[in-house]
Amino acid sequence: MKIDDNFYMKLAIDEAWKYQLLTYPNPAVGCTVVKNGEILAIEAHHEAGEAHAEVNALKAAYIKKNPNNLLKMKNSSHEIHDYLIKNHNGFFHDCEVFVTLEPCNHIGKTPACANLLKEIKPKRVIIAHKDINKEASGGCESLNEAGIEISLGCMEKVAYNLLYPFIKWRSGTFIFFKMAMTLNGSIDGNISSNQTLALTHTLRDKIDLMLIGGNTVRSDKPTLDARYIVGRAPNVMIYSKNKVFDNSIPLFKVPNREVIISDDLFKLLDYKFVMVEGTYSLMEILKERIDFVVLLVSPKIRKGLNALNDIDQDFEIIHENMIGKEKIIYLKRK
Amino acid sequence: MKIDDNFYMKLAIDEAWKYQLLTYPNPAVGCTVVKNGEILAIEAHHEAGEAHAEVNALKAAYIKKNPNNLLKMKNSSHEIHDYLIKNHNGFFHDCEVFVTLEPCNHIGKTPACANLLKEIKPKRVIIAHKDINKEASGGCESLNEAGIEISLGCMEKVAYNLLYPFIKWRSGTFIFFKMAMTLNGSIDGNISSNQTLALTHTLRDKIDLMLIGGNTVRSDKPTLDARYIVGRAPNVMIYSKNKVFDNSIPLFKVPNREVIISDDLFKLLDYKFVMVEGTYSLMEILKERIDFVVLLVSPKIRKGLNALNDIDQDFEIIHENMIGKEKIIYLKRK
Repeated sequence: MKIDDNFYMKLAIDEAWKYQLLTYPNPAVGCTVVKNGEILAIEAHHEAGEAHAEVNALKAAYIKKNPNNLLKMKNSSHEIHDYLIKNHNGFFHDCEVFVTLEPCNHIGKTPACANLLKEIKPKRVIIAHKDINKEASGGCESLNEAGIEISLGCMEKVAYNLLYPFIKWRSGTFIFFKMAMTLNGSIDGNISSNQTLALTHTLRDKIDLMLIGGNTVRSDKPTLDARYIVGRAPNVMIYSKNKVFDNSIPLFKVPNREVIISDDLFKLLDYKFVMVEGTYSLMEILKERIDFVVLLVSPKIRKGLNALNDIDQDFEIIHENMIGKEKIIYLKRK
Repeated sequence: MKIDDNFYMKLAIDEAWKYQLLTYPNPAVGCTVVKNGEILAIEAHHEAGEAHAEVNALKAAYIKKNPNNLLKMKNSSHEIHDYLIKNHNGFFHDCEVFVTLEPCNHIGKTPACANLLKEIKPKRVIIAHKDINKEASGGCESLNEAGIEISLGCMEKVAYNLLYPFIKWRSGTFIFFKMAMTLNGSIDGNISSNQTLALTHTLRDKIDLMLIGGNTVRSDKPTLDARYIVGRAPNVMIYSKNKVFDNSIPLFKVPNREVIISDDLFKLLDYKFVMVEGTYSLMEILKERIDFVVLLVSPKIRKGLNALNDIDQDFEIIHENMIGKEKIIYLKRK
């Protein structure tokens, strides 16, 4: 295996994918810090409002070599920025920083990463993909002006898939279809482990809208909340021509939730981040509009309804992780 | 992500899995070489008779820092051993060598890795799993005597799954069930890409025996050779109570191939390395005896026969790789 820039960047990309979709409205970003050839940190951005990937990685790198340092106790992005700027003492001058997205150049909920990098002056910053967010861009120029060597475009195509949800929800609507199934595509009964269910509920807590089919609501009577993580229940759009539902089912009883019953799919475009939970009929109806298919695969074989057996579609696997003992596969339509 | 011994060992384990089953009768082994914290090489054993993982990794590490060195031209295990022993000049004294299996201590088709390590004296050798092959074992003791620090048992459980086929075929029979399917478990028609088909033919070239069901032979009339890689066609056992077959089909016309027609599955135990190609009925009959299920998954959805839909079985995912744009998933029955 070749140990080169791509190798270090791929580690950053894979780390970022662990938090894909969970960073909304921010992009998923990963960062690897290498000091004189030694990997000191591989970290990612975890959640909007929390520290960016670069900040997490620079902190972890510094602590790796200074294990009992006060920095350990600093958790907010501001504190870490301040501490590193004051105390770096040249630590990063022989470091290379691999980051999947151009460091932000704008002060939002957290201070600008480009500014932090300018102050601590790593030897080189390797960037996979330019920022597409005009407000936050300009990081490259800013680092260049500070005399830091920049390499742009390392694994750009792979990083583009990582960035894709962000690109979509920045400028319009990102829609993903989520389904749990067994190895052989069965969706009957309880499929997922608790860990995978918790991920689904975490996703529900993040999204702007969940779309579900009317028949599923009628037959399964799901609650569609985020109780496993004590999170926010998403607003729900029930896709149905027939507008009559039993209003006593739990779905309608969740406080602070909006439920729309509609067969107008253009309504989805009023939202930025939409999750579709359903079977093949909904997937077939929406297929031109779905950005990602997210399959949660439990490693078991079961009899029963095969949710995907009535469509004919090719995909590209753009990423996959394990969630405990199960799999998550991210697909894009070909 | 924690950057520790486990991190470097996992890189070696993942590299080794790329050659899982292809190293028969040798074990699949991987090796990472780290010099002063810098990863110089991640390599694996590719094929019996060729250089072991340690030798490939030590060579790659040396060349990484001496790019125009003569060692580049040395390909046989003997040549690399000789060259490194004569010319290492202390290069490895500050290296840590992570290897998934105890370095062999015995001179077979290739010289002993333990001897090479003793001569070049790395700072530390980290070993995931002890060798279970008495003939080749003793590597640890040998390195210890030479004053090299040994760490044994790093990621031992994960390395055990890597080693499992070797453990089985050393002492008896290793049987794996191979099947190509779509994302939703359909096996109708042509599923796999050419790259995946080439892997199947490479496996056929390695195995001692292929088991196939009589009905498949009657209906599909497969040749079951290794023509995509111009390899050796495996011997075949057709599992069938009815011994009558049309002898004019291609399967029976392959030169230098033995074909057994039998319904006595105990015959499998006369072989060390058996691949089963078939559908659920054969899987169900053999299930107690199958060591690995190897699924080749093409990222598409298709209508049609779901090969796995009539059994009820839980698995553990022990590894997965990409083969080009498709997936290979290694499963063990729970």
